[in-house]
Amino acid sequence: MTADPDCIFCRIVKGEIPCFRVYEDDDVLGFMDINPFNEGHALAIPKDHHPDLGAIPPELAGKVAAAAVRIGRAVGEVIRPDGMNLLQANGPAAGQSVFHFHIHIFPRVEGDNAHFNWEYRPGDMERIGALAEKIAAAVRRD
Amino acid sequence: MTADPDCIFCRIVKGEIPCFRVYEDDDVLGFMDINPFNEGHALAIPKDHHPDLGAIPPELAGKVAAAAVRIGRAVGEVIRPDGMNLLQANGPAAGQSVFHFHIHIFPRVEGDNAHFNWEYRPGDMERIGALAEKIAAAVRRD
Repeated sequence: MTADPDCIFCRIVKGEIPCFRVYEDDDVLGFMDINPFNEGHALAIPKDHHPDLGAIPPELAGKVAAAAVRIGRAVGEVIRPDGMNLLQANGPAAGQSVFHFHIHIFPRVEGDNAHFNWEYRPGDMERIGALAEKIAAAVRRD
Repeated sequence: MTADPDCIFCRIVKGEIPCFRVYEDDDVLGFMDINPFNEGHALAIPKDHHPDLGAIPPELAGKVAAAAVRIGRAVGEVIRPDGMNLLQANGPAAGQSVFHFHIHIFPRVEGDNAHFNWEYRPGDMERIGALAEKIAAAVRRD
């Protein structure tokens, strides 16, 4: 496994930093974004460290996306948002702040005026934790 | 193959409507967005008709994402944008306007102030066509 000791997502994969896990398979980890733009905002990442679209093996990116679809359906079931985006960012100009490939599962609320380079606002941890349990239970790996 | 005769993307897949093709494999088609937000804006779609994240088989979505990564790298090589996003939308509130699953390969320009629900502006067809040839040539399927 490829890991960068200074990468926050690698440390989450290793269990050195806690997360609200909602999905896991051999290659991919899914967990809640602790700075949610809207309720239910989650992330899917490869366990291996690859900074971005230019570095990740395309098939591995595909596995992350397949997991993001599964997580997105579960978030949809639990939150019932008005819409949902999957978003992946490459480079600071595109809003990337953690340089470990990741896909945002980004629930939308009508009129939320979401911007690609949104500002981070810390979420309510208790609320995120409770939501994570429901989403993890709703994820189907079939 | 699943197709919807009224779906513009299904009609592109069938060749009933032309497109500036940049990528093709058994399951996925990639072509230029004719209403580009920025130069090099492209799309990856499954050949089969699935409206959105709730309907598409997750592994097929993964194949579309793997193709989007390949196209994204080629767009990056040709355009050298400041950043790049991959974006997928579900429902009008999330900015979805064609109800056939698709991933935007969305080059970013510093200060472009991109919004998830951007307005469409028709592009210059000649310019898009010329760009498509370069991007198609730069896509590596290895």
